[in-house]
Amino acid sequence: MSMVDIGKKPTIYREATAEGIIKLKSETLKFIREGKVEKGDVFESAKVAGILAAKKTSELIPLCHPLPLSNVNVNVEANHKSVVAVKATVKAHAKTGVEMEALVAVSTALLTVWDMTKQYEKDKDGQYPTTAINNIRVLHKVKRSE
Amino acid sequence: MSMVDIGKKPTIYREATAEGIIKLKSETLKFIREGKVEKGDVFESAKVAGILAAKKTSELIPLCHPLPLSNVNVNVEANHKSVVAVKATVKAHAKTGVEMEALVAVSTALLTVWDMTKQYEKDKDGQYPTTAINNIRVLHKVKRSE
Amino acid sequence: MSMVDIGKKPTIYREATAEGIIKLKSETLKFIREGKVEKGDVFESAKVAGILAAKKTSELIPLCHPLPLSNVNVNVEANHKSVVAVKATVKAHAKTGVEMEALVAVSTALLTVWDMTKQYEKDKDGQYPTTAINNIRVLHKVKRSE
Amino acid sequence: MSMVDIGKKPTIYREATAEGIIKLKSETLKFIREGKVEKGDVFESAKVAGILAAKKTSELIPLCHPLPLSNVNVNVEANHKSVVAVKATVKAHAKTGVEMEALVAVSTALLTVWDMTKQYEKDKDGQYPTTAINNIRVLHKVKRSE
Amino acid sequence: MSMVDIGKKPTIYREATAEGIIKLKSETLKFIREGKVEKGDVFESAKVAGILAAKKTSELIPLCHPLPLSNVNVNVEANHKSVVAVKATVKAHAKTGVEMEALVAVSTALLTVWDMTKQYEKDKDGQYPTTAINNIRVLHKVKRSE
Amino acid sequence: MSMVDIGKKPTIYREATAEGIIKLKSETLKFIREGKVEKGDVFESAKVAGILAAKKTSELIPLCHPLPLSNVNVNVEANHKSVVAVKATVKAHAKTGVEMEALVAVSTALLTVWDMTKQYEKDKDGQYPTTAINNIRVLHKVKRSE
Repeated sequence: MSMVDIGKKPTIYREATAEGIIKLKSETLKFIREGKVEKGDVFESAKVAGILAAKKTSELIPLCHPLPLSNVNVNVEANHKSVVAVKATVKAHAKTGVEMEALVAVSTALLTVWDMTKQYEKDKDGQYPTTAINNIRVLHKVKRSE
Repeated sequence: MSMVDIGKKPTIYREATAEGIIKLKSETLKFIREGKVEKGDVFESAKVAGILAAKKTSELIPLCHPLPLSNVNVNVEANHKSVVAVKATVKAHAKTGVEMEALVAVSTALLTVWDMTKQYEKDKDGQYPTTAINNIRVLHKVKRSE
Repeated sequence: MSMVDIGKKPTIYREATAEGIIKLKSETLKFIREGKVEKGDVFESAKVAGILAAKKTSELIPLCHPLPLSNVNVNVEANHKSVVAVKATVKAHAKTGVEMEALVAVSTALLTVWDMTKQYEKDKDGQYPTTAINNIRVLHKVKRSE
Repeated sequence: MSMVDIGKKPTIYREATAEGIIKLKSETLKFIREGKVEKGDVFESAKVAGILAAKKTSELIPLCHPLPLSNVNVNVEANHKSVVAVKATVKAHAKTGVEMEALVAVSTALLTVWDMTKQYEKDKDGQYPTTAINNIRVLHKVKRSE
Repeated sequence: MSMVDIGKKPTIYREATAEGIIKLKSETLKFIREGKVEKGDVFESAKVAGILAAKKTSELIPLCHPLPLSNVNVNVEANHKSVVAVKATVKAHAKTGVEMEALVAVSTALLTVWDMTKQYEKDKDGQYPTTAINNIRVLHKVKRSE
Repeated sequence: MSMVDIGKKPTIYREATAEGIIKLKSETLKFIREGKVEKGDVFESAKVAGILAAKKTSELIPLCHPLPLSNVNVNVEANHKSVVAVKATVKAHAKTGVEMEALVAVSTALLTVWDMTKQYEKDKDGQYPTTAINNIRVLHKVKRSE
């Protein structure tokens, strides 16, 4: 088993943007918007968690290379009455792409939203009948010699 | 900001099962089934990555407690002609639930599948027009005094 | 070399609160208060970083034991015109105290404040003539059979 | 929320030196000097912990970039009858400065000194009335095209 | 204490191959070959663990530099009736060699083999009278300007 | 794939001792004994690295459980004219044994000795013709209801 050998690939500008959503109860989103979530600021925490996770990508995904990320941007917003959307952009000058880093940032930010709103999402039996993470995708990748 | 104080909660049996899917090209799934993926054994790698990630949950999700997991099980299978499904079950005797651990295992295993099949999923411009992770949910939680 | 052998010590309730301050320019504090710090929400980021760091204590401090923390609380506030104070409380039912966890949370939160306000603290030569972290102390420890 | 985008900044020589002190009982310092600290060699352990921590900076401080450190030097010494001083120098060819790495090394080395001398610093109620970390500062930064 | 200062060394092509073996019972090897090991696929798990560990080298070995590995390859095979051999090759364009990375990959893969076959290696008293890891060596290093 | 489910196993006293050796040049050992190794104190660094690594066992070995270690002791000594021996003992009250933790401590301490003495072990072509790690074994395991 082997990581792809990127030794001969040129070091060029790389950028990737990924996205994903989490479906929450509209009531939960109301709590978020009104700053009433007991555990603290959901969106700020999710952004921090996403950025930190991007930097852990090569620890989490076995065949990912450690890359010198020059930028990680994570945006979290409520874009519907019951959906929180996370978008992450990662940049690097590197020998391979950064889409896995963007995807790890998105996934971790979404899971952090879940964790911070757990108490409002659970039903009376402690189950999550409606909460779900969906549509994690890579929106676009850029590679460019500079 | 504060983790939930679980000090007064009883230490009881906890179990959670989470699930999610990744949509791949049917051609990619054919490569996986025939053991032709260049990077190695996709399903075994995804399982290992998922199990290791479950143990990193409290590092990734800011307000998760470190928990003494007694069992993590990750299952990866092709259940449709273009879908890989991951299911993870986590168990512990702990003061709080283990659904975040199961969700982290599922997400990381799915991302590992993505990473290992990247080269077959990209189109000629290096974009991922069809690859997507969906339907990450908690199937059920159990809590039981024992 | 050896960690202290805590095997024979009883598992009891442990709590520790630590504190520390960072001296910033009053201008920097003004930017923080007005939410104008370019890098984002300083206090929220510092809290998240402090909580995550508390959970890494046994990775950072060679002879610290891994402990099942039941609560970590980090508070960050401007308490003077040019001082940000961080206070962290950590709780666990454990065989040894949690003061190192509280101290690691405080230190990391203070360093995060520094990092997020770096650009306002540097002079024209890129030096930090006035920024300083001070008075990191353990305010009190509690241990109690319960 | 976003790490600063350093992609367009030139890769140049970077160096930073940080410093800090911990106030201990003079008796504790006597034990250190005479090599009688039960937990082992305090200064060597603090140096190792400081160097390892410098390499974890981007894991601990949310918006720090992963940097290819070319050198980390940590010095620990008793410079007064009741003070241990830590000085750390970090070097890299990088697109951003390494002062946070030097500060993390200093903080972690100081906390390691605290941890290894805890038993001598606590009073009969298990409190730390006099132990304190102070004056963590960046002594100087260098940046130079080479 | 100091990492070697590699700042002035040229960035050149580096490669290192390390090797090591673990002696198991022939019965255990039979179980591995027949895919009957209860814990799962021993060789795949060992490869994944070895690759992930190579990327953690600078976290584990205090004075190792963080390096931008461009390739890690881990091979695991039964080469005698009671021996599993692990060989790892690591490549990078870096200012210092990658032999420690190859050695960490080998050691961790061998320990993973041990862990996954523990139940067959223990005698009736729970001891390991015959299991042993041996002959961990660096087979060759390459450095080359390119 | 699954970690062994230890949920039903009793929490009892566990202890394991592992050992291993590294063969160095007698000249290298002379440098160590005389405190002339340029990189610093070899044995202290190896001990610290071994203790820290024991606590990372469940991150490194995929199917290891996170365990509440109550003690880790690492001893490093020159026991022949060209051999350094490492012995590590790990203790816990846990549902499964701690031999993997002891083995990880031994391996990492031995690799740290290698890393710190590299420059004396390499021949003029940068190869390691004689350096080798051998005989990593579990000396004994204890399990006892208490």
